[in-house]
This record gives sequence, C-alpha cells and structure tokens, in this order.
Amino acid sequence: MAWLRNLSKFSTMKASSSQRPKNTDPFCLLPSFNFLRHLSSKPIEEKPVEYSGLGPTKPEEKPRVVVLGSGWAGCRLMKGLDPRMYDIVCVSPRNHMVFTPLLASTCVGTLEFRSVAEPIGRIQPAISREPGSYFFLANCTHIDAHNHMVHCETVTEGVETIAPWKFTISYDKLVIALGSQPSTFGIQGVKEHAIFLREVHHAQEIRRKLLLNLMLSDVPGISEEEKQRLLHCVVVGGGPTGVEFSGELSDFITRDVRQRYAHVKDYIRVTLIEANEILSSFDDRLRHYATKQLTKSGVRLVRGVVKDVKAQKIVLNDGSEVPYGLLVWSTGVGPLPIIQSLDLPKAPGGRIGVDEWLRVPSVQDVFSIGDCSGFIESTGRSTLPALAQVAERQGKYLAALLNKIGKASAGHANSAKETEFGDPFVYKHLGSMATIGRYKALVDLRQSKEAKGLALAGFLSFFIWRSAYITRVISWRNRFYVFVNWITTVVFGRDISRL
Amino acid sequence: MAWLRNLSKFSTMKASSSQRPKNTDPFCLLPSFNFLRHLSSKPIEEKPVEYSGLGPTKPEEKPRVVVLGSGWAGCRLMKGLDPRMYDIVCVSPRNHMVFTPLLASTCVGTLEFRSVAEPIGRIQPAISREPGSYFFLANCTHIDAHNHMVHCETVTEGVETIAPWKFTISYDKLVIALGSQPSTFGIQGVKEHAIFLREVHHAQEIRRKLLLNLMLSDVPGISEEEKQRLLHCVVVGGGPTGVEFSGELSDFITRDVRQRYAHVKDYIRVTLIEANEILSSFDDRLRHYATKQLTKSGVRLVRGVVKDVKAQKIVLNDGSEVPYGLLVWSTGVGPLPIIQSLDLPKAPGGRIGVDEWLRVPSVQDVFSIGDCSGFIESTGRSTLPALAQVAERQGKYLAALLNKIGKASAGHANSAKETEFGDPFVYKHLGSMATIGRYKALVDLRQSKEAKGLALAGFLSFFIWRSAYITRVISWRNRFYVFVNWITTVVFGRDISRL
Repeated sequence: MAWLRNLSKFSTMKASSSQRPKNTDPFCLLPSFNFLRHLSSKPIEEKPVEYSGLGPTKPEEKPRVVVLGSGWAGCRLMKGLDPRMYDIVCVSPRNHMVFTPLLASTCVGTLEFRSVAEPIGRIQPAISREPGSYFFLANCTHIDAHNHMVHCETVTEGVETIAPWKFTISYDKLVIALGSQPSTFGIQGVKEHAIFLREVHHAQEIRRKLLLNLMLSDVPGISEEEKQRLLHCVVVGGGPTGVEFSGELSDFITRDVRQRYAHVKDYIRVTLIEANEILSSFDDRLRHYATKQLTKSGVRLVRGVVKDVKAQKIVLNDGSEVPYGLLVWSTGVGPLPIIQSLDLPKAPGGRIGVDEWLRVPSVQDVFSIGDCSGFIESTGRSTLPALAQVAERQGKYLAALLNKIGKASAGHANSAKETEFGDPFVYKHLGSMATIGRYKALVDLRQSKEAKGLALAGFLSFFIWRSAYITRVISWRNRFYVFVNWITTVVFGRDISRL
Repeated sequence: MAWLRNLSKFSTMKASSSQRPKNTDPFCLLPSFNFLRHLSSKPIEEKPVEYSGLGPTKPEEKPRVVVLGSGWAGCRLMKGLDPRMYDIVCVSPRNHMVFTPLLASTCVGTLEFRSVAEPIGRIQPAISREPGSYFFLANCTHIDAHNHMVHCETVTEGVETIAPWKFTISYDKLVIALGSQPSTFGIQGVKEHAIFLREVHHAQEIRRKLLLNLMLSDVPGISEEEKQRLLHCVVVGGGPTGVEFSGELSDFITRDVRQRYAHVKDYIRVTLIEANEILSSFDDRLRHYATKQLTKSGVRLVRGVVKDVKAQKIVLNDGSEVPYGLLVWSTGVGPLPIIQSLDLPKAPGGRIGVDEWLRVPSVQDVFSIGDCSGFIESTGRSTLPALAQVAERQGKYLAALLNKIGKASAGHANSAKETEFGDPFVYKHLGSMATIGRYKALVDLRQSKEAKGLALAGFLSFFIWRSAYITRVISWRNRFYVFVNWITTVVFGRDISRL
C-alpha cells in the first residue's frame, strides 16, 4: 500500500511544519487545497511560496539528499549513497543516465539506443522502492539556498497529459549536478540547423536524418549537386566525440552503405572541421596516428573556423561555403542558463565555485559536482576538464563524504558545521581514450599532456577500449546488451530500419 | 560506380522514350532540365505530366514490378519475386516492415522496437543492390493505370532537408498493397486523443506516454483523482491486438510497475472496452478462458460503445464517462483515402476489387493484395479478413504468379494477355492466435468459426505461439534479437528508460 505510505509521509511533513512558527493552512492532497507553506529554520526573508511539495524532514526521520541532474556525476553519487542513511530525491528532465562514450555508436546502428541508457531506478533502486525516495521528471527552476528548498516544474514535452506542475522540495543536503550545455560561441544558426550529440534523442535525430538523406538522394530526378549535398555529413569539433562519430560514420559507409545503399554509395562523404588540432589533449604520436587513420578511412579533415550556419550550408571564416545534408556540432560545453543565474560563488568559466570538499561556500549543505562546478580561486586549484571521468570520480567521492556525514549524525539541514570532512577531493587522471572507426582506438594513459607515460594505438587499444567501456556500463543487463549488439553488428551488419 | 550504372539506366529510359512518338525534350539529371515526358503505348488521353522519374522499360530490359506499400503483403511479395527476372521498385512511407503480431510487446519494453522492424533491404536485397531496383521513401499520390504509371511524392516528415519532391514511375506490373487505416467510426476526437497500434512510432508514443504518466503521477501535490486518471489505461476494441496489449500491460504492471514505481503501483489500472464480445472470431471456450485470465490479471472488461473522445475522458453511449491517462484504439480497419479515390472496380467494404488471380479487372497489369483488396462480387467469393496471415499468403501466391509470368516472357507491360495464369488463389485459414499476458495464449486451429478443430489455451499454446512467431520473424538477425529480448525480460525484467 504505497499510497498509504506516501500519505503517512505527507502527514509527517504536516506534523513537521506544525512544529515551526504557526501555520494554519490545511495541508491536503486535493489540488484545491494543496498549499503547503515551506517555513525555513532561518528568519523568513521572502514571502513563503504556495506550492505543494515535500516539506522539511523531521529530526527522527532520515535526512533527505536532493540531487539535481542525472548525468555521470549525479548518477554515480546516487549509486554510492546509502539509502538506509538518506532518502534520495532526484530531479531531472530524463529518467535515465546516458552512457555518453558509446552514444556515437548508436547513431549508425552499431549499438541500440537502449543499450546506452541506464534507468535511474536501476542505478539506485531505493529511488523507486523507498517511501521517502523519489525520482521527479522535472526541471529545477530556482534554488532557495537560504530556505533549504528547490523549486521545480514537471517536464511534459508537449505530450497532452497534464499541464506543467510546479512544486518545491526541501532538502537536508543539496547536490547540484546539472551538467553543461553545448557551446555555440554565438554563431548564428547552430541551434536551428546543427544536431548536438549529448542525449539519446540527439543520436536518434542524427540516425533518422542520415537514413532519410540516404533514401531521398536515391529518388529519381534529384540533381548530382543535391545528392552530394544531402550525403555530405559535416562534423564540427575535433574532440573525442567528433572524432569517434566521424570514425563510426566512415565505418558505417564502408561496411553498410556500400552494400545497402549501393545506388548512392559514391556520393556519401564525411568532413571533420576543427579550428585547431584534432584530439588536442592527446599525445602527439596518437594525434598523428588518428589523423592518418581518419584520412585513410575517408574522412576529410578541414582546418577552419565556422562563421555562420545556414539551413543547407555552413560558411567558414575564410568565406568558403560547405554544403551539408547532416551537421553534427561537438565543439565543447559551457554553463547552463540556470547555473549562470544562480546567486552562488562562481569558478572561472561561469561554473559554480566549490571548495576542496566540493561544497559551495557561503551556503550550508549545498554541494556541486560534474561539468557545472569548478574550484573557486581561493583553493588555488585549476578547473577540471568537463569529462565523464571527472564527474564520475566526484560523484563517487561525494557519496562517500555524505555517507560519512550521515554516519556522524550530521545528515540533517544545518547540522554538519562541526563535522570533520576528512580528505579533500583529489583528481588523478587515468588516461584518455577515443575510437577511430573499426578496430582502432587511441589510449593515452599519461596523467597530463606534459607527462610521460603509455600511449597506445591500434587494435590492442581498441580491445582495451571496448573492455574498459563494457565493464563501466553500469548494469549487467546493459553490459549484456552492448555485448550482444557488438556481436550482432559483426555477424549481421548494422540495422538500417528508420523507426 | 553505381552512379554510372544509374546514369546508363536513365539514358536507357531516354532511348526508350525516343522510340515512342516524337519527344524533343532533352532529358537531363539537372533539376532545371529534368522533364521527362512519359508517353504511354496507349493513345495519349491526358497532357503528359512533367516530372522526372523512371520511364518505361525497353523490351530487352528486365520488366519492372512496382510495389506500393511495405506491409505483410508487399514484403512477402518482394521476398518471393525473382530479381533475375524483374527489377523491383517499392514505394512506401516507411523503409521497413513492422512485425505487427509482436508490436504490442514493444510498448511495455518486453521487446525492443528494432526487433519487430525488418528493413526492406534485408527482405529483398536486390532493392538496395541491383541497379534497376529501388526503394523510394514516398507516398503514391495517383495511379495512372491507362499510362502504366504511378505518381509519387517523397516523405520528409518535417525534417529540414529538402522540399517534398514529386516524381513518376512507369511500371510493367503494379501491385497495390497499401494496407488499411484504423476505423474511427466517425467518432469525434479519436484521431486527436487516442493512439493507434499499427506502426512502430505508435508503440513508441504509447511507451513514452505510459512512462511519462507513471512519473508525473508521483509528483507531490497531484490529487488522488488525477493520479487515478493519469494511470488509467483504456483500450478500446477487444480484437487480438486490444487483448494482447491489455495482457502485456497488466503483466507489465504486475511484474515491473510494482517494483519500479512502488509509490504509485496501486493507482494503475487497465480497462478494455468492447462493444460486443472480446476475440469474437475465437472458439467459445477460448473466449471464456481469455475473459477469465484477463480479469484475473486485473484487466477490467467493460461492454460499451464509445460515443465521444475528449482530451482526458471518453463518453460511452449510456452517458457514463471514463477518465483516462492513456487511450489505445484498436477497433478494426477500413480503406485508406487513396484506395477510396481510385477509379478501379471495388469489392464490398470499399476495397479494391480483384479476381481469383488477384488481378484488378478492367485494367492491364495491376494486382492488389492485402487489407486494401477484396474479391469482386462476380467471383462469388466473400471478402477475406484483414489479417497478416491473409496478406502473407497473397504476397506469396502473387510472387509465384509473377515469376511464372516472367518465365513465360510476359513480364512487360501489356504482354500477359495470352498467358495461362494457372491455379487461382485459395485461402486456407491456418488458425488464430492471441496472447493474454504472461505465459498464456490462445491458439484456435479451426478453419472457420463454425468448423470443428483444435483449440488450445494456456502455457502450451503460449509456447506454440512464441515458437510460431519467432520462426516467422523474417531475418535471422531479428529472430536472434527477439530471442535475446525475451531472455533478458525474463532475467532482468523490462527496461523502463524513457528515451
């Protein structure tokens, strides 16, 4: 009887709020009465907001950790949090984590979309089972750190079901792990015409457009010029994502398009545009190897800066025009609007500033991890790169820290001031990896660009790469599916149905 | 050099047309000159249409079979056609065949979407390899049977790539296998608010809405009434599709929702509304068994006629209102608008009328199979049910017939008048099958409702059902995937990520 448990939970909240300064509003689950005044333990500075929600926890209850975001950082944190110690509430516009390093493979059908998505309920089962733990499909619209509360609004993506719904959640500990957004550098037309490669729906869009263009270019009467444009795939940005996607695409062309789109196979081309060097963080020899391999597999490498993006062509800084049928944008990331708008200390680059323990200074019980955070200047540490590896390590560290705080009975709001936090977070780079098409990968095991260390290229590193990734995919179900997908691709070729 | 082959093909068309009455228009692939006048062998009755396209074949070339549609009928036909004898051109708005009997299983994640979709290029590899065979992602807009030509327009579904493109295809043999569309019986609001269950995108929409409603109903402050509405899944129509979907849904609720959406599990309900009896074509005992099993697994069976469909509720004939969060409409099928508009003989029910050899009388070289066709009254035969089984059998029969015609050198347009067609098409019903949730199925092996024969229910028939279907899924790749999906569902439960 989960609804009974929920009801008792909500009643608890009522009881809890009745311990605070007087509040005569009735609390009721019916929408006509659903005003629950959230009263903070601090002096009330603003008029209380009148939305329903999860009120503050009582001292005898489990404290509540609210996690904003469901990327590498947030999910690794939730996986590590002890649900016997905390109620865990996650707020995110998607109910799964995307296994980003394998996303490029899904665009061309090497892997299924579902194989690279891990439902949050599988990462932290308490979310779907414990009466006080929840996943809310919503965006955080405002953080009220003084009142230990976040404001949220449900995501419905235009599906006709119920109107967007606003609610609030009181937290004992808040972890901001909202990630970043792709940088467009103020270039006109990027958002309108290019496709990013960060979410499953991006990969789906790329796949649908690629297959559509392959089919449309076969229609009688389409001019040679138009065929060439439709089948020109342009990738902007030569980081690991751009290189991996270009490699997958050229492999798809070599292995699958030649057989299955025989009529148009000689029209399809891939161009990778990068302003500087491709894979700039990698070892020199690896970069040369990558350049050679990509060129060999048919990817045209162009050094250039994009000035303008139009519906069917991009314009480079030197004035040259590049017609395209598919444009993928993978040039790096910057802070989200909500992060920019937060009244919290900032790190260089507009990220939320954190100290060595990943705490946001100046406010109580707020932490930030992943792409949206960086060390404040007073720590003397430089901002870490926006990598899955960093986010994952921070999530793991913070889970252990919060569990430790919980064990010290300092889990509730405003009760951790005297707690010994122990060792600060230290990031040790374990190396970088990138695939470049079929059975080729780069593995750079140096700790930094300047350091000496192991750099591998070719089949052996491809094997390492696949092994490393397959053991990182979180659930056994998805490990199994990724394995099956790879085997199927080798045996039967890629799937080309356009769903 | 496929484009060279294509070019020679197009040149051939030019040569071909130059044998006909004088045509001084230059034929060129550039769009500014792409007018190819299609001249029929019959006296020109209408002004020639000025679109580019595939012109008539020459006598020394392979004749061209144009197949409209990519459902059971069209795909089974293409699979059986001999590509050494014919060039095969398929026109359809989707590049895959949907394995409809398993579609209901994809809505709740028992099977992956991709496992039930078979690309046409895998069904008939000549389509993607042979220089004169094509698949065009397009809708047929007009059939000009007197000129042996079809008019088409590309499908782009709003994707920004190129504007819809019109073209024509001359045929030697035309097979109309366009299928049917769901019947709404003129009820207001069905198209706007209900979801059908015939295409993969329908199943995707159902899945997304179901998971969205599960998550939204968990948001704090949603009223009890609204929760119940959001999680009320209503299925209208008690045929095999409606029953199978209801069964899958109740199994999903029992097995997966209870664990993974523990907070709201007691709110979710399934109601199946049917005006008459469920599974009316099945044996009485089987129907009773199905009713018992569905009721036992929690499906509420309601006998009623829907009068009106609104955004969040349906109104029945007796005035009662049924609030819903998800509405699936599976009440039967009727003819498509293009079929209704055709100036061809009709069978009862508005279908295209065909004779015993599935030919459309009154015109040369036109055949029709599947849901869109029926026997004309003069044959004295009754219209066959709109079943996959019928479509599949007709496709198989017609492939053999066309191959026979081709062998008799009567493949070209207007050359089969003297050909002996051999045995007419005879349909023998092999029995009906339907699943009702977990490990339960009905198998009715009687040849008609009145006949005596074997009727099975329960686990044994579930086993037969799965075996029968897994061997019918056309490619080994998909057989393998369906097998893997089923195993994974049993071992790990269903996937719940909302992609």
